[in-house]
Amino acid sequence: MRIPKHIGIIPDGNRRWAEANKMTKEKGYECGIDPGLILFKLCKEVGIKELTYYGFTTDNTKRPAVERKAFTNSCISAVNLLSKEAAELLVIGDYESPMFPKELYTYTTRQTFGKGGIKVNFLVNYGWEWDLNSLKLADPAQKNITSHIKSFDVSRVDLIIRWGGRRRLSGFLPVQSVYSDFYVLDDYWPDFKPEHFYRALDWYNDQDVTLGG
Amino acid sequence: MRIPKHIGIIPDGNRRWAEANKMTKEKGYECGIDPGLILFKLCKEVGIKELTYYGFTTDNTKRPAVERKAFTNSCISAVNLLSKEAAELLVIGDYESPMFPKELYTYTTRQTFGKGGIKVNFLVNYGWEWDLNSLKLADPAQKNITSHIKSFDVSRVDLIIRWGGRRRLSGFLPVQSVYSDFYVLDDYWPDFKPEHFYRALDWYNDQDVTLGG
Repeated sequence: MRIPKHIGIIPDGNRRWAEANKMTKEKGYECGIDPGLILFKLCKEVGIKELTYYGFTTDNTKRPAVERKAFTNSCISAVNLLSKEAAELLVIGDYESPMFPKELYTYTTRQTFGKGGIKVNFLVNYGWEWDLNSLKLADPAQKNITSHIKSFDVSRVDLIIRWGGRRRLSGFLPVQSVYSDFYVLDDYWPDFKPEHFYRALDWYNDQDVTLGG
Repeated sequence: MRIPKHIGIIPDGNRRWAEANKMTKEKGYECGIDPGLILFKLCKEVGIKELTYYGFTTDNTKRPAVERKAFTNSCISAVNLLSKEAAELLVIGDYESPMFPKELYTYTTRQTFGKGGIKVNFLVNYGWEWDLNSLKLADPAQKNITSHIKSFDVSRVDLIIRWGGRRRLSGFLPVQSVYSDFYVLDDYWPDFKPEHFYRALDWYNDQDVTLGG
């Protein structure tokens, strides 16, 4: 079986899940924490080398404060949980903004926990424009792009899995996603089941990698 | 009905269509010319303001010469056909490379034909790295990205329609595609039917635009 090296996760549908379950919207986020850990363990089991979670974006922070606090706290909890696992953890996003939670500063340089063995990237207060803006500091004579963006330590994504039915990237790592295969599940993220992950891997196995060739 | 302002077209599957029809691969491209013109006319009818075709990329030019010549010639023919319609036409791609067809130089600044009324962008020898590389010439103090890339005259894409079943962007305008809704048809591009276009519009109508908010 052809296993992707790097999987990107867009865990969407938390608010719609909460409303469908008669809760206020912001309650959805905390129900998305456990699925993230289960998914991490599945990735380790099948030998995924790198995993990137879409936490929240600079655009997301324009939402009502009660939601902003809820998704920020859920990201803090999720990263803290992951730091108890064997992983090489990096939190990436605009940490100069007040929207970046202080609790996660320590993860903004990659840290190895336990024996490491899998790179885990967590996008927190991430913005695609923020990411690309550092290209303006690079030498135009050098054609390379990937080593000059802020997320240079995040490699090309092979497979993106999005929950919640929307077929769009929503600003997720535009450079690393240029050749990603994109799998969308209609289920909301808090309804995550291991079966979703295996279904995405099966689908990926049937794709061919051409990189434009 | 909610009509997208700007549609991106990824006309994939020409080679697979040729093989399925017992032709050599490169024969598929010329059968993709007429569908492009039909689609253009449908877009005008429903009031689309901007349309971008994915012609070929710098990566595609690494394919066998017989294929490269075939898709280059098909792009030249397609652009020439479009120049006989009322449209504001721009060909965008790395025109300093020998892979860029001389016949299309004249279109590398936007030209209005007839009464104009619809912007049509045609990507020819386009490369996402080429596009982003001009950011290295911009002032880092200015946070804006879109006005500093080479494709600055191509606006945000609302809906991307891809033929040929692959669910990936393949380097298509990474900046303008950050929030695009992505509709994939399994049919190969030379099998284009107007119904495909209407099906994509119906699907788009059911999506909501949040831009991260």
